[in-house]
Parts: sequence; C-alpha cells; structure tokens
Amino acid sequence: MDAVPYLAFVSALAGLGLAAFFYQDVKKASPGNDRMIFLMEEIQKGAKAFLKQEYTWVSGFAVVLAVVIGAVIDPLASLSYILGAVLSAGAGYAGMTVATMANARTTEAAKDGPGKALPIAFRGGAVMGFSVAGLALGGLMLVYILFVIVLESANAFEIVTAYGLGASTIALFSRVGGGIYTKAADVGADLVGKIEAGIPEDDPRNPATIADNVGDNVGDVAGMGADLFESYAGSIIAPISLVAFAIGLGADDIGTNALPLLMFPMLVAFIGMIASIIGSFLVKGGTSTDSKALSKALHLGTNVAMGLTVLGVIGGSLWLFGDSDAFANPIGLAISVIGGLIVGWALGKTAEYYTSDHFGPVKKIAQQAETGPATTVLGGISAGMVSVAASVILILIGVGVAFWGGEYAFADTGELSEIGGLYGIAVAAIGMLATTGVVVSVDAYGPIADNAGGIAEMAELDPSVREVTDALDSLGNTTAAVAKGFAVGSAALTALALFKSFEFAIKEASNGETVLNLNIGEVDVFIGLFLGAGLPFLFAALTIDAVGRAAQEMIEEVRRQFREIPGLREGKEGVIPDSARCVAISTTASLKEMVIPGALAVVVPLVVGFINVDALGGLLAGSLVTGFALAIFMANAGGAWDNAKKYIEAGAHGGKGSEPHKAAVVGDTVGDPFKDTSGPAMNILLKVMTIVSLVFASAFV
Amino acid sequence: MDAVPYLAFVSALAGLGLAAFFYQDVKKASPGNDRMIFLMEEIQKGAKAFLKQEYTWVSGFAVVLAVVIGAVIDPLASLSYILGAVLSAGAGYAGMTVATMANARTTEAAKDGPGKALPIAFRGGAVMGFSVAGLALGGLMLVYILFVIVLESANAFEIVTAYGLGASTIALFSRVGGGIYTKAADVGADLVGKIEAGIPEDDPRNPATIADNVGDNVGDVAGMGADLFESYAGSIIAPISLVAFAIGLGADDIGTNALPLLMFPMLVAFIGMIASIIGSFLVKGGTSTDSKALSKALHLGTNVAMGLTVLGVIGGSLWLFGDSDAFANPIGLAISVIGGLIVGWALGKTAEYYTSDHFGPVKKIAQQAETGPATTVLGGISAGMVSVAASVILILIGVGVAFWGGEYAFADTGELSEIGGLYGIAVAAIGMLATTGVVVSVDAYGPIADNAGGIAEMAELDPSVREVTDALDSLGNTTAAVAKGFAVGSAALTALALFKSFEFAIKEASNGETVLNLNIGEVDVFIGLFLGAGLPFLFAALTIDAVGRAAQEMIEEVRRQFREIPGLREGKEGVIPDSARCVAISTTASLKEMVIPGALAVVVPLVVGFINVDALGGLLAGSLVTGFALAIFMANAGGAWDNAKKYIEAGAHGGKGSEPHKAAVVGDTVGDPFKDTSGPAMNILLKVMTIVSLVFASAFV
Repeated sequence: MDAVPYLAFVSALAGLGLAAFFYQDVKKASPGNDRMIFLMEEIQKGAKAFLKQEYTWVSGFAVVLAVVIGAVIDPLASLSYILGAVLSAGAGYAGMTVATMANARTTEAAKDGPGKALPIAFRGGAVMGFSVAGLALGGLMLVYILFVIVLESANAFEIVTAYGLGASTIALFSRVGGGIYTKAADVGADLVGKIEAGIPEDDPRNPATIADNVGDNVGDVAGMGADLFESYAGSIIAPISLVAFAIGLGADDIGTNALPLLMFPMLVAFIGMIASIIGSFLVKGGTSTDSKALSKALHLGTNVAMGLTVLGVIGGSLWLFGDSDAFANPIGLAISVIGGLIVGWALGKTAEYYTSDHFGPVKKIAQQAETGPATTVLGGISAGMVSVAASVILILIGVGVAFWGGEYAFADTGELSEIGGLYGIAVAAIGMLATTGVVVSVDAYGPIADNAGGIAEMAELDPSVREVTDALDSLGNTTAAVAKGFAVGSAALTALALFKSFEFAIKEASNGETVLNLNIGEVDVFIGLFLGAGLPFLFAALTIDAVGRAAQEMIEEVRRQFREIPGLREGKEGVIPDSARCVAISTTASLKEMVIPGALAVVVPLVVGFINVDALGGLLAGSLVTGFALAIFMANAGGAWDNAKKYIEAGAHGGKGSEPHKAAVVGDTVGDPFKDTSGPAMNILLKVMTIVSLVFASAFV
Repeated sequence: MDAVPYLAFVSALAGLGLAAFFYQDVKKASPGNDRMIFLMEEIQKGAKAFLKQEYTWVSGFAVVLAVVIGAVIDPLASLSYILGAVLSAGAGYAGMTVATMANARTTEAAKDGPGKALPIAFRGGAVMGFSVAGLALGGLMLVYILFVIVLESANAFEIVTAYGLGASTIALFSRVGGGIYTKAADVGADLVGKIEAGIPEDDPRNPATIADNVGDNVGDVAGMGADLFESYAGSIIAPISLVAFAIGLGADDIGTNALPLLMFPMLVAFIGMIASIIGSFLVKGGTSTDSKALSKALHLGTNVAMGLTVLGVIGGSLWLFGDSDAFANPIGLAISVIGGLIVGWALGKTAEYYTSDHFGPVKKIAQQAETGPATTVLGGISAGMVSVAASVILILIGVGVAFWGGEYAFADTGELSEIGGLYGIAVAAIGMLATTGVVVSVDAYGPIADNAGGIAEMAELDPSVREVTDALDSLGNTTAAVAKGFAVGSAALTALALFKSFEFAIKEASNGETVLNLNIGEVDVFIGLFLGAGLPFLFAALTIDAVGRAAQEMIEEVRRQFREIPGLREGKEGVIPDSARCVAISTTASLKEMVIPGALAVVVPLVVGFINVDALGGLLAGSLVTGFALAIFMANAGGAWDNAKKYIEAGAHGGKGSEPHKAAVVGDTVGDPFKDTSGPAMNILLKVMTIVSLVFASAFV
C-alpha cells in the first residue's frame, strides 16, 4: 500500500513519455507548403509571445503570494506553491507549442482525407492532455513523497495543499487572460471582417485573423489545459486534505485507518492514468469519412479509458480497504468514484443537450431567430437558465450517491467516521477527472482542427481540404461539452470537500478553540453568504466588460488597417496586413484586463477571512452555489447561441445571410464572452477562493 | 402601550378614508370626450376582466391551501389566510378601478397643462396607495386584536403569520400573471405595430394597443399593489413572529419585555401611515411646466412623509422602551428603523444610477448601441451585474447597522436577549415600508400618466396634450426605481427575519427536540443551498419563456387582424380593430402561464420540508441570496436598456430610426420580461417560500 504514491509517480512519468512520443509523431508529419509554414509560425509566435508575457506578469503575482505563504504559513509551502504554478505553466507552454505545430500538419494531412488528419490532430491534442495529466500528477506525487513520506514535515498537508493553490493561480489568470484574448480577437475579426468588410471567416486579408487563431490556442488550449491541471490536482488534493485536516494529522502520525484513505485518491489517479494511456492508442483514423465513424474513432479512446477506470477502481478499492475491519464495505468508495464519473458524464450530456443542434433547445433558439435578435437572446438566456436547474439536480444526485457510498464504506474508523460521506464526495470528483489525460487530448483536438481550417483558408488551399477540416472541427464541438461537464462538476464537488477541510483547518489551527460557526441563521454567516452570492455577478460583469473593451481596441485597429493600407481590402497581390500589431493589441489588452478580476479572487477571501472567519465560511458557500449556477448558465447559453447560429448557417431558417441568421449572429456574439471568458473562469474563481482560504486558515485564527 | 394596535387600526381606517376622499376627487373631474370615455372604458373593462379571471383562478388555489392550513395548522389560521388574500385582492381591484378612471381624466386635465393634470394622476395613484396600506394594516391589526388580544388563541402567532401568507399568494400570482400579461401585450403591440406595420406607439389602428394599456394597469398597478401589500404586511409580521417564535410565546403569556417588542412594529406602521397621509396632501400642481419643478412637487409628499416618520420613530422608540430597564438604549431600535429607511432609499438611488439616462451606465449602453445589438445586450447585462454587487453591499450595510441597533437596544431582556440584532434587522424592513401609502401613490401615478398618454394618442388629441402627458410620464420612471428599492431591500430583510423565525418555530413545534441544523458544512444543508441557488434560475427561465409564448400568440393575432380586416392598416374611417380579442388572448395566456412558476414557489418548500427540514433551511437561504442577486440584476439590466433606448429616442447617437436605435430596441425587448416579469416576481418568490415554510413549520416536525 505504501507503494501507491510511487506507482502514481511512475504512471505520471509514463504519461509524460507518451506525450514525448506523440510529440515526435506529430513533428515528423509534413507541415505543408511555405505559406502554411509561415502561417503556422505566425500563430506559434503570437501564442508564445502571449504566454511569455502572461507568465511574466503572473509570476510577479505568484512571487508576492509565495512570499506571503512563506512568511505566514511555511517556507516549504511556498516552494510547493511555486512548483504547482511552474508545472502548470509548463504544461500550458508545452501543449501549446505542439498544438501550434499540429495545426498546419493537420491541414496538410487533410489533403489525404480525414483518416490521415484525425490522428495528427488527436495526437497533437494528446501532447497537451498527457503533459497536463503527467505534470500535474507527477509534481503532486513529488511533493507528497518528499514532504509527507521522506521529510515528514510539520506542515506536510498544508504544503500539499499549497501545490494546488499554485496550479489555481495559473489557471485563474490563464482562463481570464486567455478568455479575454480569444474573444477580443474573435469579435474584432468577425465584426469588421465578416460584417463591415464583407470578407469570409479566416480570410488572409483580415489583419485580426492571425490573432483570432492565436486566441483559439491561448484560450482553448493553454487556458483549458491550466484549468484541467488545476481541477485534476485539486481533486486529488481535496480528499487527502480532508482526511488530514479532519483529524489534525501530521505527517508522522498517519494511522492504519488514515493511510488507505490517503492512498486511495492517488490509486484512482494511477488507474486513470494507465487507462488513459491505453485508450489514447486506440484513436486511429480509419478510411471512412462519415461523421459518425469519425466521432466513434475519436471517442473510442475516452470510452475505453473510462471503462478500464471503472474496473480498476472496483479492484483497487477492494484491495485497499478489503483487509481492514474499519471499512465495512470497501465497495462503497468505488461506488462514490463511479457515481462521480457517471454524473460528470451526465453533466456533459446535459450540456450537450442544451447546446447541440441535434436537440430541442438549440432548434428552438434557431426558430426564435425568426422573430429577431431580441427573442434569440431571450431564448438562449432561458435555455441556459433551465440547464442550471437540470445540472443542479444532477450534481445533487452525484453528491447524494457519493455521500452514501462514503458512509457505506466507513464503519469503525475512529475519529474519521464523521467524514465518511464527505470523503465519498471528494473522491467522486476524482472519478470525473481520473481520465484527464485522454479527456484533455480530445478537448485540445478541437482548437487544432479549428486552426487547421483557418490555415487551409488563409493559405488558399483547395476547398476540399477545408471540407475535411470542417468535418474534423465539427466533432470538436461536442467533445468540449463533455470536458466542460467534468470540469464544472468536479469543481463543485472539490470545492465542497475543500470547504469542509477549511472548517477542520480552522479548528485545528486554533487547537480546537475556534470552531467555525457556519450556521446560516447567524448574521455574520448570512452576511458572508450574501456577499458570496454577489461576487460571481461582479466577476462576470468585469470579465464581460474586459472583453468588450479589448474587442473595441481590436475593431479600431482592423478598421484602421483597412483604411490606411492601400489594396488590402481588395486583396491586391503582395499586400499583407499587419497581423503582428493585432496580436500585440490582444496580448496587451487581455493582460491588462485580467488583473482586477484575477486579484479579486485572491484578495476578497483574505480580507474577509482576517475580519471574520464565519463570514468567510458564508462567503465561500454563497459564491460556490451562485457561481456554479452562473457558470453553467453562461457556458450553456453561450454554447446554445453558437450552435443555433451554426445550425442556421447549415441551411435552416433561410441559411447564411438571412434575417434569422443575422439575429443568430447577435446571440452568438452575446454568448462569446459568456462561454469562453466568464463562464469557464467562474469555476476556477470558486476554487481559488476556497483553496486560498484553506491555505491561510491557520493565519486567520 | 396596549393601545398601539388600536391606534394602528384607526390610522389604517384614516388611510382608507383618504383613499375614498381622493376617489371622489378624481371621479368629479371630467373624463373628456366620447372617444376618450370609450377608450377608458375599454381599458377598464379589459383590466377588470383580467382581474376577475385571475382572482377566480387564484381563489381555487387559495382555497386548497386554506383547507390544508386549516387541517394541518389551525382552522383559524386558514381564516386569517383568506382575509389576507381577500384584502390584497380587494386593494388591487379598488386601486385599479380608480387608476383606469384617472387615466382619461388626466388626459383631459392635461389640456390645461401639467399643473392641473399632475394632482389628478397622483390622487388616482393615491387611491391605490392608501387602499394598499390601509387594507394591509387594517386587516392585520384586526387579526392581531381579535386573535392575540381578545381571543388569546392558542396558535395566535401562527394565525397572524398566515395573514401574510394570504397576501403573498395573491402577490405572487399577481406579479407573475400581471407581468406576463403586460409584457406579452407590450411586445406584441410593438413588434407588429411599430416594426412590421410601421405605425407609431399607441396607434388606434393597432389591435393590441388596448391590451398594452390594460397591461400597464394589471402589471404596474394591480401587480405592484399586491407586491407592496405583501411586503408591507410581511415587514410588520416578521418582527412580531420573530419575538413570538423565539420564546415560544402564546397569546396569554406576553411578558413585560415582549410586549413593547410586539407593539413597536405596529407603532412604526402607525407613525408611517399618519406621516403618509400628511405628505400626500402636499402634492399640488402649481403652475410651472418645468420638469424639475414638477418632480419636486411630486416628491414633496414622499420626502415630508419620510422626514416625519424619522422624527416619529425616534419619539416612539423612546416612549415605548424608555421606561424599561430591560432596554438599555431605546434609541437603538430607532437607529435600526432609520437605517433601514436610509438603505432602502440608497438602494432606490443605486437602481436609479444604473437605470437612469442621467448617469454613466445608461449613457455607456447607448454608446455601445453604436456597435450593434450584441454589444448593447452585453452592456446591459454587465451594468445589471455590477449593480448587484453595489446593492449587496448596501443591503449588508443596512443589515449591519440594523443588527447593531438591535444589539445596542437590548440589554437585560431575558430569553429575548439573543434576538436583539435580528429584531433590529426585522424592524429595519418596516423602516423601508412605513411610508408605503405615499410611496405606492407615487408609483401608481406612473402607469396612470402612461395611460393618459396612450389615450391622448388613440383619441387623436392635439400633440400638445401628448407633450404634457409625456412630461408627466417621464417623472414616473425614476419614482418607480425608489419604490423598487424599498420593495427589494425589505424583501431581503424580511425574508432574513422570517427565516430566523422558521428556525425558532421548528424548535418550538418539536418542544425543543428538533433543533434545526443549519450548518452549511452539513451535506443536507448544502444540498438545500445548491437547490435553492438553482431555483431562481428555473423560475426566471419559466417566466421568460411564458412571456415569449404569450407574446407569440399576440403577435399572430395582430398580424391576422392586419391581414384580414380590410382597411385597418390604412386607417380607413370607421374601421376599428378587434381589441377585445387581443385582451382575451393576453388574459388567457398569462393566466395559463402563471400556474407552474406560481405553484413552484409553494410546492417546492413543502416537498423539501417534509423530506428534510435542514435541507429546507439551506434551500431558503440559497434561494434568498441567489434570488436577491438575480432580481436586482434583471430589474436593473431591464431598466438600463429601457432608458438607453429612450435616451437615443431623445436624440442621442442618431435618434429614432438610426442603427443604434434599432440596437437599443433589441436591448429593451430583452429587458422587458427581465424588469417587468421575472425580476419583480423574484422577491415575492423568496418571501412566499419562506413564509410557507414558517406557517408549515409545525407540520414538518
């Protein structure tokens, strides 16, 4: 049993090895002609420039926080914090480097049909997927082995938690900054290009096209990767810290009951990693160009990985807990994990139901576009809001099953008996994220396919190539929904578990003197709850406004170039737009705009916590429930508008250029910051706030 | 001190006398020419037909609930419940009858300028204002005197609370049904009339114009009146029930410390009523047509009433609590009440800041209309969300001050000592609502002035008349913001106090055995909290969809009439539209659509409460904080869009017919169900849920 952290560490290395293998595999494919290589390099340059500046800025913030952590908590915790941040940044950088190499190669391979192009795009995404999973798990295991097992540090579990905070910091700024970047570029490119200048999407004459393609990478690859890095690491940390803080555990006194509970999360991660590696080898192109066959090929890896994980978790829990009388029903924790996995999948399916044009809600919005933009907007808002209710009920089923599984498993576990159900909830979140490697691979596949289409367009290749990349791209839309379901579901469960750890940590830090009073009937808790409910609204408003301002700058620059560069609009031979300037504008604007919303997430809980910890408890709970609802609302409303527009573009209700299409474009534009900026960043906001509170718990009392 | 309930009762009768006096005053004014009388009668007929059908339907629901209350709680409580419902309905009916008489009379008086028209519109509104305040307070005092003082009933305080539930039931359905009605008619009239047929607002050719004007009355007069009736009664009940449930008080054992606490809310209501009566006499027309002078004239009544209330409350609290050693600092409770009044006023001002075109946010939205409907929609959403954060902070200041005032006042009050702060919060809500009589008068003035303009247009009077009514109408916009601030602020405070009473009631009903565990760290409370956060989103979606469906029916009917009635569109002499049919459509559709959202508010807490009371506690808290945020967001975003459109119509950014104007119309249409249906109904949803839980508390355990 003691070997589990080492096993998990080795599996993480195996994941990284796979990433390296896929990297070589992608690299040896041809990137196409000179024009394609030029475009690829432009995108790569823009993306790297953004990441470099972003990380520079964030590192300033991270250093400040690291110093505070070192001074207030433990210098070793600040090391662990920095490691979490650096590895998350590294995963983002590595994944994006490969994604921006794989795009042109996918385009080139698309000349030979989707069977060739699909594996390249997938493997390009898989470098991201396994970099994220491998580095997140590897780093965490390193911290665990070093500080808990080898050094038996006094604040071992605070140090482990600090790793999660490092990951959260990067995730928050990557999601916010990346989200602002991608939407500013997208809106700028579309509004002036498609609407004012009347040129098609991804046209090489449009100065913002490169920035738009860079945006796909910094938002959907690097931002999403950092998000999943944080979610994945956080989900493993949450049950470990719950056990540790519940019984005031030091690294030197882990008892027989606590040990398997500490090992189980790592065991599940190990099983999921191995299953993901196996699954990812099964994604092969085949010869069919049929969209169902392609979709099946792409999802085979995920489905196999999940199936293997379920089997592995059943075996693993029997092995870990089967010998101990303290755990009456070892299968209970497997039920929690599998329950989490199923609910995460169901959340993804719910998101798909509300956002895919195969189902009623999106068709209804497209129908509402017949009566203009206002009804389109209202339709999306309503669909998003209904999806909140559906998702809340699913989450609560997940919470209920996981809680029951935990209670069922625990019997005579001494002091630990009281946390059985909560432990079940915490490991349910790992159930959702155990297969992060392959899930992120599929998710990162999306922007690569999207970019490949952009390159095909800009390099003015044969339209048949674009058809192939479009077919690949359309697969990406539904895969993103599943990953989002896992991310948002696990965020709720992880935050709930961390919240409970926070409660224990306060008690422990004050030697049992300060017992957190979280009774909602108390006025300070209620004030916190109210404040917590208001915060996600403020955060959403700030990020929406940020996108608006950044997009405005972009619009003005694109207009200026069309006005001032002779022959650009007409597409005169040899006249090229100043793309670099658009990239620079997006970069500067998004970095400037991410500061306030990002800082809010860290500063507010600290300020409230130092004033009143009970109010902080209320604040965290209020933000969690309202933020979760708002995140689902924004993500699904945005997705629904996007696909209603695409549904009309595919020919429904008059098709492209019709009045309903114009109305749908309005809905889509409203949804852009919803689904790609505010919505995804909201999950991380919630977790950053909780984990900041947890790390600083001892300082509050 | 024992005389207070009687004094309050007499002051309520005085309020009703004033309403009767103003009724005579309005009635004797001339309603104008035959055409105007015809239009007035059409609007009156439509409004009465709607109310009749609405009350018929709601009475079915109320009878069922009354039977349940009688069987489960106390037959006398069901009597009190019915009284609350009947009086609320009566106030709505009376107020609307006069409002629909005052409209044409205001138009007629407008021929002689605003100095003549203003008092008629105000006094028409004042019939509503004092009917609401007089009946709400009079009925409540009757219940209190009868069951607490005279009969000393066993369940006296449950019976008093049931009165509030009766008022809530009517308010919920009036707000939802009226909100759906008014927006369906408005959207239907605008979309086909203004946009498709290209005819101006309130044009007599438009078949939906009468329905639109009826809608103003059923939504903004009857709906708003029922809302304030419920808020006002609820705010007086909340501190009384808090005291009663906190110490498990029966009517026969009111001690010396409890007595002044029971009397104080009624004393504040008495003071506010007298102050409102005095204030309302001060609203006089004058001769100036300047908008500032008019605004000053209209608001003089409210300002004087508030000033008098402040003075009266200081004197009253010194008188009530000054003699008792148990209350160390009698002034403390005056501070709570005055704090509530100031915060309510500040909430109104905040709403005004975010929704009036005199300030930055609306101007910014108008600016964003330059780049199309999408940026307009995003601008409004963002402004609404920021206003949530501002309002939350204000409410929390109010809660803090009121809590401190309560704690400061209470010293040696025995068992009651623990509720000092909460009692302060409860009476702060009365501070916001003590001047309901005059506040509602000013609020009901708005739709009367609006209707007067409609009649001027439809009766094809001289444009100068319309100019006068427009000037009067524009005053109404800001007055509505203040009333909304009071309504929403008091809802939060009242719900918080009722929530606490619920906690005590559970304890009392189980003889202290079941102590509500409201610790957010417990999983059942957390599940409730989550569910509670999701519910307002579902409620908003249902009401938005309801408006959409009802508007669709209206649109089709208006189109049909333009198509099938020869000469209608061209305005041929003697050709009139079938307005009655549009009225019938709005009526049927809105009544059908109000059932599900309305029932949700009553059924969900009952179901959850019978399963698990701790989860119900979480549910109430979650709904309260999220619903409050959503209500503010929707109300202010909607108001901001509305006024951004009006700002552009007044000439900014190209004025009427320009592209920015079209974009602003989209924003306004999105905002219509936000501000007039979902937003205002949300407050009542929260209170209905809390009060249902409180009334049924004894049945849950």
